[in-house]
Amino acid sequence: MIKTDNYGIVFNKLKSNILDDWKHYTEHEFVKSIGNANLDKKLYIKYLKQDYIFLIHFSRAWALLVAKSNSVDEMRIASATLDALVNEEIQLHIKTCKAEGISEEQLFNTEEELNNIAYTRFVLETGYSGGFLDLLVALSPCVFGYGEIGLYLKSISKNNNPYISWIDTYYSKEYQEVCTNIGNLLDKAIQDRLGKDFANNNIWPKLEETFLTATKLEIDFWEMSLRLE
Amino acid sequence: MIKTDNYGIVFNKLKSNILDDWKHYTEHEFVKSIGNANLDKKLYIKYLKQDYIFLIHFSRAWALLVAKSNSVDEMRIASATLDALVNEEIQLHIKTCKAEGISEEQLFNTEEELNNIAYTRFVLETGYSGGFLDLLVALSPCVFGYGEIGLYLKSISKNNNPYISWIDTYYSKEYQEVCTNIGNLLDKAIQDRLGKDFANNNIWPKLEETFLTATKLEIDFWEMSLRLE
Amino acid sequence: MIKTDNYGIVFNKLKSNILDDWKHYTEHEFVKSIGNANLDKKLYIKYLKQDYIFLIHFSRAWALLVAKSNSVDEMRIASATLDALVNEEIQLHIKTCKAEGISEEQLFNTEEELNNIAYTRFVLETGYSGGFLDLLVALSPCVFGYGEIGLYLKSISKNNNPYISWIDTYYSKEYQEVCTNIGNLLDKAIQDRLGKDFANNNIWPKLEETFLTATKLEIDFWEMSLRLE
Amino acid sequence: MIKTDNYGIVFNKLKSNILDDWKHYTEHEFVKSIGNANLDKKLYIKYLKQDYIFLIHFSRAWALLVAKSNSVDEMRIASATLDALVNEEIQLHIKTCKAEGISEEQLFNTEEELNNIAYTRFVLETGYSGGFLDLLVALSPCVFGYGEIGLYLKSISKNNNPYISWIDTYYSKEYQEVCTNIGNLLDKAIQDRLGKDFANNNIWPKLEETFLTATKLEIDFWEMSLRLE
Repeated sequence: MIKTDNYGIVFNKLKSNILDDWKHYTEHEFVKSIGNANLDKKLYIKYLKQDYIFLIHFSRAWALLVAKSNSVDEMRIASATLDALVNEEIQLHIKTCKAEGISEEQLFNTEEELNNIAYTRFVLETGYSGGFLDLLVALSPCVFGYGEIGLYLKSISKNNNPYISWIDTYYSKEYQEVCTNIGNLLDKAIQDRLGKDFANNNIWPKLEETFLTATKLEIDFWEMSLRLE
Repeated sequence: MIKTDNYGIVFNKLKSNILDDWKHYTEHEFVKSIGNANLDKKLYIKYLKQDYIFLIHFSRAWALLVAKSNSVDEMRIASATLDALVNEEIQLHIKTCKAEGISEEQLFNTEEELNNIAYTRFVLETGYSGGFLDLLVALSPCVFGYGEIGLYLKSISKNNNPYISWIDTYYSKEYQEVCTNIGNLLDKAIQDRLGKDFANNNIWPKLEETFLTATKLEIDFWEMSLRLE
Repeated sequence: MIKTDNYGIVFNKLKSNILDDWKHYTEHEFVKSIGNANLDKKLYIKYLKQDYIFLIHFSRAWALLVAKSNSVDEMRIASATLDALVNEEIQLHIKTCKAEGISEEQLFNTEEELNNIAYTRFVLETGYSGGFLDLLVALSPCVFGYGEIGLYLKSISKNNNPYISWIDTYYSKEYQEVCTNIGNLLDKAIQDRLGKDFANNNIWPKLEETFLTATKLEIDFWEMSLRLE
Repeated sequence: MIKTDNYGIVFNKLKSNILDDWKHYTEHEFVKSIGNANLDKKLYIKYLKQDYIFLIHFSRAWALLVAKSNSVDEMRIASATLDALVNEEIQLHIKTCKAEGISEEQLFNTEEELNNIAYTRFVLETGYSGGFLDLLVALSPCVFGYGEIGLYLKSISKNNNPYISWIDTYYSKEYQEVCTNIGNLLDKAIQDRLGKDFANNNIWPKLEETFLTATKLEIDFWEMSLRLE
């Protein structure tokens, strides 16, 4: 089993509550097919296109987190993540897609599928209607799940895997550090607001529910990625 | 063909752009099966439960529209709609469901399906990220579509149809007046902001896109309603 | 001293923390001058005009509270309050102002003063950036303070006081019931989220701070009302 | 007169409508007293402390602009500005204040004055309730005004002016480039949404009003800065 102790106390608590769903997400058939190199290139390209749209909305949600921060420290970490998304991850996507023959214009004009809409709008709306914690927890399954997937796939895939650069992105020291930093942000944000005994705070069950819904929406995203239009 | 002139200029313009999708929504297999009384009771109950969750979020979106209004007149119409939703339509749902043996608690604990999440969060997020017009247009396919469906189903269904009270709700003079009033609100709001020649305003295409996406999400809602879990 | 036990546990706790500021607000020179009928009519009219603008934004904030509710019960109380504001209190204002020779158009075109902007935008922004509790607490000083002022002024003013109908609005059984109902809403909302021992929850101090800031902004509103342009 | 052609067409149009207010802001007594080195050090320190709080909320507003963007290009410019604010301007403030003997903790605990609350919450609430353009226009007087003030003060102040490093911050090539870039962003955003003939679009007068209110709130900020607590 993949160790994620460095992703922090709160994430590991949230994950431990819903282990079956979590595994369904992080060890999904789509994920495994990347690891064993069996993924149809057409599906990979479809995924990249939908994920580009996803990243745009996900970046907007991180921006909203900055607006909802309580301290300059929270703002710094959230805006550094936003910066990495807008100036690195989205750019990397554009580059990868270009290598696959998809132009930036094609990417931007990709029709957003239902499952993609459901996930991104759920996260953004959770953020707008709730507060900082609601939003940060809604963002968590994506951040930490991709970290785990990077570690998992690296452990099972061969070096000649055609998807190795995708795997390396999330396996990389840089991405694992992002997970550690956001794990710290989450731990501190939760303890500041709910105390050390956070899991007994009345607000906690709603956060657990948000984490579960976002995890299920990640599963739905993989399901979509397995279907050719 | 159902006549909806009294729903206003803007709605009829938006609808005329996407007639195929609009018909797919308002004359969907699920809709027809209500009209010809062939709908499986289990599917009807499933629909009622999901629609209860939908109505809660839809009410929240109408509340947000009040917050985004530019004038006291806009606030009055939007808050009257909110009031009708919270104090009449949601109550009617609770009553109808009770008659079918579903308690309010069961209703509230219904697990929200993916297609339901996609639609409600799309509308709310469009409202939070955009302004008054974006939100009002995102709310339009539901308001006007149900009005049309009421007229359409009344014209094809028999009086002994077991779903006649559902049909009558949307066929009723009261509901048709809601459509007229909100049609007026939409016409005035658009002309105030985009002018008489609104369809040539640069902002218009984005509103058309919002209307189309919300219409497709209505279709997806019917698709969900045809599937038993 | 005015008794406000029926306004609920949470409000009375919040008030007891900041008694000096609270008295400065509810027994402000402007308030007293209404009670002893010494208020210059010009200042009263200025107040009515600014308060009309205030009520519009305050209504928008109550609408936002509906959007941020966690349950249908919360939505019902918040939307009933919104309805009372939009369809009664704002209308009453328009009527009162008309009696003083101020048309609705003049009212709507009143230039919003700095202190008015500060208060209304603080409340709305607290609501948008935070969650349900943050917003409800930001709304509290106005709701409960006017209830107290109604009781206080009735106890000191004579029946021939020219401002008696203003006083009676807030002294009325109806308005006092609003205070009781919103006191219950606040008590239940706080206990649902922070537990019985709410004052020891880490989130509590931020709510206290919000209550204090909104109370100070009420004082600033009275200060503005004492100044002729 | 200071030339600001490179700040773009839209800003110069907005400014030309309200030249008196604009001059009242950019050539305010407080501004001039920095230029002629007559500003009391105590007032300067008070200003720095309030401006630190201002910058935090201003950064949150830029983050919100990212969330409200329509394209990746808009997101890139808005998030670069956010990054500059959080990682450079706020840090510069902390450093400058430290040099004046004010710790970061003191800064963070500065009590926000009424005029500061009014301005920052007006901008944020305009953004939350409106869309991208409303927010960007609300942010404009600060961005461009400080650019003009930098140019103006440099032209009248001597090199031994104790406030020269503050002046140089806004006179600097870097800051002037920020103004040019945001001027381009504003021009493109307006033309994309309102067309070349933007000043005849029905939406335009509301944007003019927002620009005027934010300019007046800048004047109020200087007024506050001239008062010792």
